[in-house]
Amino acid sequence: MKTLCTTLLLLAGGVAVAGTPGPSHGIAYPEGWQNWATIAVSHRTDNNTLRTILGNNIAVKAAREGKTNPWPDGAILGKVVWKDAQHETWQAAQAPGKFVHAEFMFKDATKYKNTHGWGWARWVGLEQTPFEKGAQVCISCHTPVKNNDWVFTHPASLP
Amino acid sequence: MKTLCTTLLLLAGGVAVAGTPGPSHGIAYPEGWQNWATIAVSHRTDNNTLRTILGNNIAVKAAREGKTNPWPDGAILGKVVWKDAQHETWQAAQAPGKFVHAEFMFKDATKYKNTHGWGWARWVGLEQTPFEKGAQVCISCHTPVKNNDWVFTHPASLP
Repeated sequence: MKTLCTTLLLLAGGVAVAGTPGPSHGIAYPEGWQNWATIAVSHRTDNNTLRTILGNNIAVKAAREGKTNPWPDGAILGKVVWKDAQHETWQAAQAPGKFVHAEFMFKDATKYKNTHGWGWARWVGLEQTPFEKGAQVCISCHTPVKNNDWVFTHPASLP
Repeated sequence: MKTLCTTLLLLAGGVAVAGTPGPSHGIAYPEGWQNWATIAVSHRTDNNTLRTILGNNIAVKAAREGKTNPWPDGAILGKVVWKDAQHETWQAAQAPGKFVHAEFMFKDATKYKNTHGWGWARWVGLEQTPFEKGAQVCISCHTPVKNNDWVFTHPASLP
């Protein structure tokens, strides 16, 4: 039944992935992230990517309440990444081009105590191929923000 | 009961607005947009703003199915705008600074036939002050994309 429901949800969403992608670093695919609420956005000019940072319900609640250092157990942060592209009509606007990957941080201070309280995972391309090169790849890049619970994102100001 | 529920939702979300903002151009405030799903993001370098483009359920379904020219009646698109700011740790990253405004397009080909099938509205600042300078302000800017049903946004590619 779970598989049937998943299939129906995928069909309803017009999602391209056939079936659920396999785990990344032993972490199961966080289904439904495409409909998660927004925590922030960003534009990296060093690798020309636009990003939206989404969260599951626990993460969004923590973000909106300013309780993010540390983030609570159960929070999942998703970073969805596209190459940037010039809008064809508004030349001073950068908009999403090719989808690059979706990467996630799963907070559980106990379960993931050996990787700074987070599970680190990434699924690459529209086919969502699991990234399996090791959490250290993620952790190395995030080390400058270890005092911000290893998270770059500051929740965007919202009314 | 509706008011109570709204109040509880606002409290639960940590939302700063006291009560529901008044209408903009006669259009009621689209409560709950802070939790809508993502359609795209953008970065405008002419006015230094980062944006996320969200949609209500009808809009997101249309976006994911590629049925956006025209968008279906009932679709609401929300553009959430922040000034861009350099991330303090990752200098080549632009992230949301001060919240500017949230603006919305409400599709109803019949109701809004005099404004190209869309209701145009904007709420300014964290206090969400209704914008009342007239839909023509919005329409003038959107005229270059009249053949794209007056919408700049192309739904971002998603798995």
